[in-house]
Amino acid sequence: MTLIDQFSTQYGLVKKIDAFGYLDYLKKYTDEPRKHGKVVLVTADTPLKASRGEGKTTTTIALIDALRARGVDATAVLRQPSMGITAAGSKGGASGGGKSSLSHPELIDWGLCGEMAAIENAQNLLVSFAEKAVDDGLIDTILVPRVSEVPSRSLRQIAVDRGKGDVAEQVVLTPTCELMQIVVLSRSMDEVAERVSKMVAGTKDGKPVTFGSFVDLWRITGILGDAVKPALTETVNGSPVYVHCGPFANVSLGIPSLVSVEMACALHDVVVVEAGYGADAGAQKWLDIACREFGAQWPSAAVVVTRASTWRDDPKLAWRYPFHVHRLENLGIPTFPLVNLWDGEDDRIDTLRDTAASLDLRNPIIGNLFRDGGQALAPQLDGFVDALNSDIAGVSGGASAQHADKRGSHKGIGLVEDVQWIAANVYGVPADRVLLKDGFADSLASAAELCKGVGTSIDDLAVVAVKSPATMTDDDSAAAGERTVTLKKVDPHLGAGVVHVNLTTSLTTPMPKIV
Amino acid sequence: MTLIDQFSTQYGLVKKIDAFGYLDYLKKYTDEPRKHGKVVLVTADTPLKASRGEGKTTTTIALIDALRARGVDATAVLRQPSMGITAAGSKGGASGGGKSSLSHPELIDWGLCGEMAAIENAQNLLVSFAEKAVDDGLIDTILVPRVSEVPSRSLRQIAVDRGKGDVAEQVVLTPTCELMQIVVLSRSMDEVAERVSKMVAGTKDGKPVTFGSFVDLWRITGILGDAVKPALTETVNGSPVYVHCGPFANVSLGIPSLVSVEMACALHDVVVVEAGYGADAGAQKWLDIACREFGAQWPSAAVVVTRASTWRDDPKLAWRYPFHVHRLENLGIPTFPLVNLWDGEDDRIDTLRDTAASLDLRNPIIGNLFRDGGQALAPQLDGFVDALNSDIAGVSGGASAQHADKRGSHKGIGLVEDVQWIAANVYGVPADRVLLKDGFADSLASAAELCKGVGTSIDDLAVVAVKSPATMTDDDSAAAGERTVTLKKVDPHLGAGVVHVNLTTSLTTPMPKIV
Repeated sequence: MTLIDQFSTQYGLVKKIDAFGYLDYLKKYTDEPRKHGKVVLVTADTPLKASRGEGKTTTTIALIDALRARGVDATAVLRQPSMGITAAGSKGGASGGGKSSLSHPELIDWGLCGEMAAIENAQNLLVSFAEKAVDDGLIDTILVPRVSEVPSRSLRQIAVDRGKGDVAEQVVLTPTCELMQIVVLSRSMDEVAERVSKMVAGTKDGKPVTFGSFVDLWRITGILGDAVKPALTETVNGSPVYVHCGPFANVSLGIPSLVSVEMACALHDVVVVEAGYGADAGAQKWLDIACREFGAQWPSAAVVVTRASTWRDDPKLAWRYPFHVHRLENLGIPTFPLVNLWDGEDDRIDTLRDTAASLDLRNPIIGNLFRDGGQALAPQLDGFVDALNSDIAGVSGGASAQHADKRGSHKGIGLVEDVQWIAANVYGVPADRVLLKDGFADSLASAAELCKGVGTSIDDLAVVAVKSPATMTDDDSAAAGERTVTLKKVDPHLGAGVVHVNLTTSLTTPMPKIV
Repeated sequence: MTLIDQFSTQYGLVKKIDAFGYLDYLKKYTDEPRKHGKVVLVTADTPLKASRGEGKTTTTIALIDALRARGVDATAVLRQPSMGITAAGSKGGASGGGKSSLSHPELIDWGLCGEMAAIENAQNLLVSFAEKAVDDGLIDTILVPRVSEVPSRSLRQIAVDRGKGDVAEQVVLTPTCELMQIVVLSRSMDEVAERVSKMVAGTKDGKPVTFGSFVDLWRITGILGDAVKPALTETVNGSPVYVHCGPFANVSLGIPSLVSVEMACALHDVVVVEAGYGADAGAQKWLDIACREFGAQWPSAAVVVTRASTWRDDPKLAWRYPFHVHRLENLGIPTFPLVNLWDGEDDRIDTLRDTAASLDLRNPIIGNLFRDGGQALAPQLDGFVDALNSDIAGVSGGASAQHADKRGSHKGIGLVEDVQWIAANVYGVPADRVLLKDGFADSLASAAELCKGVGTSIDDLAVVAVKSPATMTDDDSAAAGERTVTLKKVDPHLGAGVVHVNLTTSLTTPMPKIV
């Protein structure tokens, strides 16, 4: 029995791993054998539509199958799909496709082992406790939203206690709630409890009141007992894949749990982390939130997925793909374009390589991954593997050491300045074209006041840009010199330690309609 | 590997069993070794308060531990507790207590393997599909409620689409929803799908429209894949216990799934089924719904739990306990009083036996089951085991054969007449004191019309009496000749094949306040 087996339990068709316990054990017993795997981000061009995937999961699966076929101990860490969206038919699953699939997509897409549902129940229970706190006179306004895993447009705005209190509420999708963020960011159950205790339940006479002041935290952590454990499944070719925590990097963190990636790095040499939707969402969140502010590992390489048609057919949006690739390269991350071909596109390979060269990109990796799986990639990975090998000491040295200064925390930088930094670096919009919508200043001021009320500076919270998955600016089709970003409102999540800033055409509550 | 192992999968600390598959296999391969266990109901006096248990689960666990100590292959089938209620602190757990506990109460009480959450999501997804059907013009009124596993008084009455449609809705607790009833009653996934297809989504111009006419049923059954599988856990003494489906026999079926009991009967000689709250709720539902209408096994014995104090301290309600015991005996079910002592009540044993004798009850089984576990019961079970053994051929013969005519279906009996039968036989209130509240006739007429619209007679649906768990009549403390039962409204669940009739002081939507 290996060490990790002692922290693993069979759970139907998958294994669930006590990542908290395993990582804690490794910290205590430093002589135990472990690896120090390198992190690779698989991200994508900004998608044209949120519901039409570029093929990130398919690419992730093909990539690790290909690396393992070359003898590299590679694995992937995926986010759990939002079952509600999948089950509702608003999008397909998120388990790859064809030869680049997970062996049990029905399980991954359809609720896994109830992790998301447990987080939903725990967050809703917090709302119920807040409601009781209103009855008990402890608070007069509730600031935590109820959540639903099932999408429903009419839940965006609801009134509860109809006919009596008629209290206005919003319902958000489970993956985007603060408790999901807490599970993503915490490295122990104690930290989960500590963060829940710091969540602001509501206000009393305008002053924030945290859950820690009136909730039995064990009731919440009790519900989350199994939800904090990553699941281990595999690709149809037998490559190991870990799945943990929720999607939607446009409106929340949208990254897998930090401990799932850390555990994978202790067990494998290469850990591919899926970071979607596009590089401006998932990759931005991994780099600027997980790495800079929460100690996650800086990637040793990145793969940016696109489709042959996307790259070609939208001239006004064509700036986005090379922009993303060059931005990542400029951070010192060797970044590989990857074109996920659909049927009938094989004859476009030469043209695609020419285009990439003309855009000053690395020679792209190209394949029909649905049809051909990892076999389509394996022969093309020499440069990719070289780049990983040349980053000898992982994040702390190698080719990217010169960029280490670009990886620091933004803690203490003013919120607007921080968003301006994101706009300039990630969206290509300079500070003078970052606009403040009417009401933004008030929203910022009251958010800052709320933070102050619990002894935190809003400038110490990590900024979560909330935006449409399909755009980075108010109009991505506008000329480069005319693109703007408009800041709309501010919403601190003091338990998670982040602050949401709504930009562009974002939805306040991402409750999609069933399509 | 035994046959049942082939249908079992480890699922964390429990096993999940494909009961559908196992029972199907036994039907096909009739030579396979199997048992034909007898069913024992453990029920209770009508509780004084719903939140204060009499100790049914504790008794059930002590009873099977005691039977196994005597060499009898006994097991129990428990309902999964409503996690929301437990987590909210509205009641304690439902996993027994002290020496009469399950080995993993934290697991059973805290969401098990996500079964309830999956049913919640599936029912809520049906509501979302109904909402889309409104958008598509297929229906104009939605008749299925959203559900929540988490209690919240303000969810009882809500308005969705606030500020636009302002559509009034009610939210009910997950265990009480129609989809839970369908999982309880179905014997295959095909039957689940068939029943979901028959659920009435809403009406169009007053005519019922079923989900079958516009929903992809595989999306619903996909979510329920693991939820339909009973879990196998054990008592602290190692006795096997199956857990499946939801509680609340006062407002819904409140019984474990039919297949979990049938599977247990194929694997063990004695199967103890917990049927709460009181004999007027869970036992009534097992006998009059599960057995009469859905082919469940008639019990070979019953145990009616009470507490020493309950039996003694409430003279105006003292009629209820002997009434329940005699009613069950009169149905031909050998019925054993059991007094679950609390600390400091040991000196009451002689008095309790005298009281039982004066009430013409069997000699009661008495013990402090929390403190002493099954050891307190084992020496007292001679008569109980004799009664089981004398029912030689189980339900089809033995001492209770003369009562077989009391077990027939009530299909075709008019709804009011059927409720009058329940009132007379189960609550002790004759037909002339069954009152119809203003509006009841209209409610019944429109329910009957709805049923007719899908080709079903309302008189063919099984009646689910919806009432307070703590009362059977409008005032249980009134003199026997003055007690009444008032029928309030009618709500058919055409997928489950049942019709709810609200009586006494029932809540329309059982959404308790957090206490």
